[in-house]
Amino acid sequence: MPIDYALLTDLYEITMAQGYRDSGHENTEACFHMYFRDTPFKGGYAIACGMAQLADMVDTYAFSGEDIDYLSKIPAPGGGALFAADFLEWLRDFKLTVDIDAVPEGQVVFPNEPLVRVKGPIMQCQLLEAALLNCVNFQTLIATKAARVCLAAQDAPVAEFGLRRAQGAGGGLWASRASIVGGCASTSNVLAGKMFDLPVSGTHAHSWVMAFPSELEAFRAYAEAFPKNCTLLVDTYNVEQGIDNAITVGLEMRERGEKLSGIRIDSGDLAWLAKMARRKLDAAGLTDCGIVLSNDLDEYTIQSILEEGAQVSAWGVGTKLACAYDQPTLGGVYKLSATRKPGGEWVDHLKISESAKKLTFPGVLDVRRYYHEDGHIAGDMVFDTNVGVQECETIVDPLDSLRRKRLGGKRFETLLAPLARNGKTVLAPKFRDALAARERAREGLATLDESQKRMLNPHSYPVGLERGLFERRSDLVAKLRGFE
Amino acid sequence: MPIDYALLTDLYEITMAQGYRDSGHENTEACFHMYFRDTPFKGGYAIACGMAQLADMVDTYAFSGEDIDYLSKIPAPGGGALFAADFLEWLRDFKLTVDIDAVPEGQVVFPNEPLVRVKGPIMQCQLLEAALLNCVNFQTLIATKAARVCLAAQDAPVAEFGLRRAQGAGGGLWASRASIVGGCASTSNVLAGKMFDLPVSGTHAHSWVMAFPSELEAFRAYAEAFPKNCTLLVDTYNVEQGIDNAITVGLEMRERGEKLSGIRIDSGDLAWLAKMARRKLDAAGLTDCGIVLSNDLDEYTIQSILEEGAQVSAWGVGTKLACAYDQPTLGGVYKLSATRKPGGEWVDHLKISESAKKLTFPGVLDVRRYYHEDGHIAGDMVFDTNVGVQECETIVDPLDSLRRKRLGGKRFETLLAPLARNGKTVLAPKFRDALAARERAREGLATLDESQKRMLNPHSYPVGLERGLFERRSDLVAKLRGFE
Repeated sequence: MPIDYALLTDLYEITMAQGYRDSGHENTEACFHMYFRDTPFKGGYAIACGMAQLADMVDTYAFSGEDIDYLSKIPAPGGGALFAADFLEWLRDFKLTVDIDAVPEGQVVFPNEPLVRVKGPIMQCQLLEAALLNCVNFQTLIATKAARVCLAAQDAPVAEFGLRRAQGAGGGLWASRASIVGGCASTSNVLAGKMFDLPVSGTHAHSWVMAFPSELEAFRAYAEAFPKNCTLLVDTYNVEQGIDNAITVGLEMRERGEKLSGIRIDSGDLAWLAKMARRKLDAAGLTDCGIVLSNDLDEYTIQSILEEGAQVSAWGVGTKLACAYDQPTLGGVYKLSATRKPGGEWVDHLKISESAKKLTFPGVLDVRRYYHEDGHIAGDMVFDTNVGVQECETIVDPLDSLRRKRLGGKRFETLLAPLARNGKTVLAPKFRDALAARERAREGLATLDESQKRMLNPHSYPVGLERGLFERRSDLVAKLRGFE
Repeated sequence: MPIDYALLTDLYEITMAQGYRDSGHENTEACFHMYFRDTPFKGGYAIACGMAQLADMVDTYAFSGEDIDYLSKIPAPGGGALFAADFLEWLRDFKLTVDIDAVPEGQVVFPNEPLVRVKGPIMQCQLLEAALLNCVNFQTLIATKAARVCLAAQDAPVAEFGLRRAQGAGGGLWASRASIVGGCASTSNVLAGKMFDLPVSGTHAHSWVMAFPSELEAFRAYAEAFPKNCTLLVDTYNVEQGIDNAITVGLEMRERGEKLSGIRIDSGDLAWLAKMARRKLDAAGLTDCGIVLSNDLDEYTIQSILEEGAQVSAWGVGTKLACAYDQPTLGGVYKLSATRKPGGEWVDHLKISESAKKLTFPGVLDVRRYYHEDGHIAGDMVFDTNVGVQECETIVDPLDSLRRKRLGGKRFETLLAPLARNGKTVLAPKFRDALAARERAREGLATLDESQKRMLNPHSYPVGLERGLFERRSDLVAKLRGFE
C-alpha cells in the first residue's frame, strides 16, 4: 500500500514552500522538533511509535508528474493558479536532504522531550510536517494504549482485533502494528500481519453458530474443521447452555486425542460468567481449556475483572484499543526551534503564547536519560546539542522553575538516534521491526517504578530543561514580550 | 493507494470460510445487514458515507499469489498450517458473486435500519465483513460529525484540516472526504484533494512568522508571494499587535490594488478576540477583510462563539472533526439475518442476547421512508422484501412495542439501491462523487424538522419494524428462548 507522502500534507506546507523560495529562504536551514505536551490517558508514560513509517516516508518521498499536474490545477481563491510554474518545476526535481533523528520505536517517552528532530532546508522541514505528525501522533497513542492494556492483563496475552471499528483501513493497519509494539501478542488484521510480519490470531463469529441448525452442530463442525485452533464462542444464544455445548465438544475432542483450547465469552457480565465457566469446565475435567474474554474491554475493565478473581487465559481487545477510545489523539506538535543562514550560526526561535504550557523550546535538542544504580530511571534532561550540559547537570521543570533536580554523577544515555542523513534513511533493520520494538518497550517499562505505571494519578517522572537552556529560554521570552 | 481488501479482514473470516467449505456450506446463501444501534454524538441523525470505498473494494477484490503464499505460512496454534492447501487453491481463483445494496452516500439515516445489505454465498458475505464495517463505520461517523459542525457554523464555510491528528494516513484521507460529504467547504489534505477531487485550502503556519526577523516582515513577504490567497495568522506573538501588523499590510495591499482576504486567529479566547479584530479592521477601513477562527473547535464551541455575537467568515476545524474526538467510533454491526440452501426458501436467523437492544433482525430487509405533505420526513419502516408490507402500514419500535405509528397514505421512497450485482459494481458515477453526496446530505437535512437537528436532546425520529416483521421477530425470540 504505497502512500504518496509528498501530497499527504496540508496545502499550506506547499504554499509556504513556494513562499520561502520567493522570499529568499531557499537555503535557510531550520531545526524542528516533534513532541507532545501531555501524557495520554492521564497516564505516567508513552511508548514511542511511528518511526518505521517515517523511514518509509523518507525512502519514497517524491513528487510524481501526476502530483505536479494536480498542483498546477489548484486555483488561488482570488483567481489564477495558486502555484507558480517555476516552483512546480523545482518540485519536480525535488530531493530530500534533511537529517532526521528520532527515539527508537518502543522507547518509553515523556512530555516536552523531542521524539523526532528534523534539520535541513526550512522548506523541506515544513513539507514533512503533516505526514510526520500524522504517523508519530497516532502510532505513539495506540502503542501507549496497548501498553496500558497489556500491563492490566498481567501475563495473559492480549489479541488486538479492532479493525472493524478502526478509523479507516490505514487506521486499522498501523493501529495493529502499534498495538504489537505496545505489547499485544497478536492481531486479527491479516493484512497488517502480512505487511509488518506480525503474529495473527482469531477463531469464529456468532454468525458461524447462527448458520447451523443448532449451536452443538456448529461447535462440532468447527472442531472438525480446526482441531488445532479450536476456541468456541459460547454466547450466541445462552451462555450457560453454550458452555455446556462446548464441554460436550471438548470431551469428544479429548476422546479423539485432540484438545479444545478455549471458550470465548463476548457479552454479559464477563467476570461473573468467566468464574461460572471455570467451575463448569473444571467440573467436567477440562482444566486445560482456557477462557478468552472480549467485548468493549480496556485497561480499566480488565483490571476490574481480574480483581474479582476471574481466571482469564487471553483477552481480545478491539474498539477501545484500535481508536484509543477515551482519547483518540495525542496532540503532539512540530515546532521550529532554530534557523541558520548558510555558513552562519544557529539562531533561537520561540513561539510565545498566553499559556506557559504552549511556549516552545529553542535550540537543537536531544535528551539525556539518567538512571539510578538499581536500573530505574531517575530523570530526563532536554539539552541543546550545540551548547552542551552545565557541570551541575541540573534540570528545571519548564512549567515550574522552582522544581529542579540535580542528576550529576548518574549513568545516562542519549535518546535521539540517526534515522536519516542527507535525505536517506540510515535506520538498521532492527529499528524497523515491530517485534524488536515490542521487546524494547517491555525492557523500558521495566525501568519505571511501579508508581509511575499506576493507571490513575501516576507518580510523575522528572523531565526538565538543562539549566542553561532553561535560562536562555526565559531570557528570550522576556525579550519577545518586551520586558528586556 | 490501492488497498489489498482481500486481506484487510480479521483472520477469523478466512478461517470461517474454510470451515464453511469443509462443512458443506459452500453453496449456502446468506443475507447480512450493516446497521448501527445508536445515533453518534447523542444527535438526532447520521449521514451515510463509505459506499464509494465499498465500490472500490468490490472492483478490486482478489487474493494475489503473494496473499496466498502468506496465508499458507500462518501456523495453527496447535501445530501445522492453519489453512488447507485445497482451500488456498480455491481462494486463488476466488471471484466475488455477491449482490450488495446500500443507501447512497450523503443519505440521512437513523438507528436500526440497514445502510448496507449483502446477499450471496455465506463465505463471501463473511469475507467482506471487516473491511465493509471499517469503511462504513468510520466514514459515516465523520460525515455525521461534519454535518453537525457545518450546521453550527450556519452559512460560513468550514475547512477541514485534521490530517496531523487523524488516525493514520488512511484515517486522514477518508476523513477528509467524509468531511466534505457532511458539508465542509474544503480540506487542507492535498492527497485527499487529488484522490477524491475535493476543494483544497490553506494559508500559513506560525513557523512562517517565526522564520522572519519580525512579524511585519513575515506578513509582507506572504502578501507579496500570495496576493490572491492572503490570510494572515496573527497570533504567533501577541494577537493585538498581530492584527495591527495585518492591518498595515492590508492597507499596503489595497494601495497596490490587491486585497487582504482575511486574518486567522488560532489561540486565546476566540470570541473576544474576533470581536476585537472586527472593530480594529472596520476602524481601519478593511471592512471586507474576513476573520477565520481555528483551534480545537467543534460544533459546541462554534455555536457558543456565534451566540456571543462574533462575526466569523470561515472556520478551520481539525482534531475534533477528523477523529470525531468525543465519540471516535460508530459501533455499527453486520449481522446475519437469513440463509437459504440452493433452490430453497429464505430461513430467518436471529442472535438473541440478554439486552433487547442487541437482538438482531430477521429477513431480507429494506427501508421505506415516508414523507409529510410539506416535504418533511414522517417515519422510516424496516420491512422484509420477501414478504412486503401489511395494509395498515404501521411501524413498531423494536425497543418498545407500545410505540407504534401508522404511516399509510403518505408518499414514500425506498432507501436501498443496487451497489453491486453478481460481484460487479453497478454504481453510477454520481453515487461515487463526494460533492454530489454533499448536495444529497444538504437536501436530506432540509427534510428534517429543526427539533430533530438540535445539538442536545434532539426530538427522536420514528424508525420501526413493519408490523408483520415485528411480530415474526417476537415469535422467533420466544422460540429461541424456549417459550413457544
